[in-house]
Amino acid sequence: MEFSATLPLSQLPYVYPETPRSNKVYPFWPCKRRSSQPTRLHCNKMYVPGFGEASPEAKAAKNLHNFFTYVAVKIVAAQLESYNPEAYEELIEFLGRHSLNDGDKFCATMFRESSRHKNLALRIMEVRSAYCKNDFEWDNLKRLALKMVTESNTRLMTEYVLETSIESEK
Amino acid sequence: MEFSATLPLSQLPYVYPETPRSNKVYPFWPCKRRSSQPTRLHCNKMYVPGFGEASPEAKAAKNLHNFFTYVAVKIVAAQLESYNPEAYEELIEFLGRHSLNDGDKFCATMFRESSRHKNLALRIMEVRSAYCKNDFEWDNLKRLALKMVTESNTRLMTEYVLETSIESEK
Repeated sequence: MEFSATLPLSQLPYVYPETPRSNKVYPFWPCKRRSSQPTRLHCNKMYVPGFGEASPEAKAAKNLHNFFTYVAVKIVAAQLESYNPEAYEELIEFLGRHSLNDGDKFCATMFRESSRHKNLALRIMEVRSAYCKNDFEWDNLKRLALKMVTESNTRLMTEYVLETSIESEK
Repeated sequence: MEFSATLPLSQLPYVYPETPRSNKVYPFWPCKRRSSQPTRLHCNKMYVPGFGEASPEAKAAKNLHNFFTYVAVKIVAAQLESYNPEAYEELIEFLGRHSLNDGDKFCATMFRESSRHKNLALRIMEVRSAYCKNDFEWDNLKRLALKMVTESNTRLMTEYVLETSIESEK
């Protein structure tokens, strides 16, 4: 089947923070690092509003958790495709009816669909656990993200400078 | 203003992989770890289809990159709110007109809006760089994500067992 292991974009997991309104204000500009915060005492980190009781790290972890479920579904679908076409069809059919935005909700629903779906859900849960514990390259993630921010900032500034140089030459 | 440092959910960054169709099939179930892969030779990792030339780590890093831009916008908005209400209003007004889904595109557009917006964009880029290099707790991200997958899997299975136990007692 054409859609096989390819999940539509609407199926991709996405969970980002709700942003409760914060009343905290910080009067410094440019940013002056705070020496104390209500939630992070004696910490030199910048204050990040709007994450409520959680933290940016927790929100990013939740997002990665859904991403791992998405990756696990892709892994399992690819494994099933030729080995067990029937289970593969069932997985794809289920994917067409249920969003992968919330990985846990997806697995919980699949669990209750039928006994065959229950086995699929167990397999997906097993794979996402193994994937994030053993296969996902955490150091590489950090390295790539740090590289990306440096390169993106440089590129954005270079492009702007080039544009304005060309305009001023006209 | 009410929306102040609170960004609407539609503004939250989201970039996940496009999923080019892979023709690779793996005939084993349960998952048999591959001893060799075209892209990861002599590697025992599970095959993850659909990421093309990139990797899941690169896709996750891209997503985090946009998340850091989102966090930087929140940090800068909170800093500006009382110190420089005019710049704050301009930032919020700009946010209302431009999506934060693609952090780089957001910054590039802001760069070209006006000289004041250019300074705002430079500040956001500076903050996202400092945030991901110094403030974001990478070890904590990993710890939370690993904890989340274990706890979620246990919870999902426990809930299912409890449900079926209650049903069988009826």
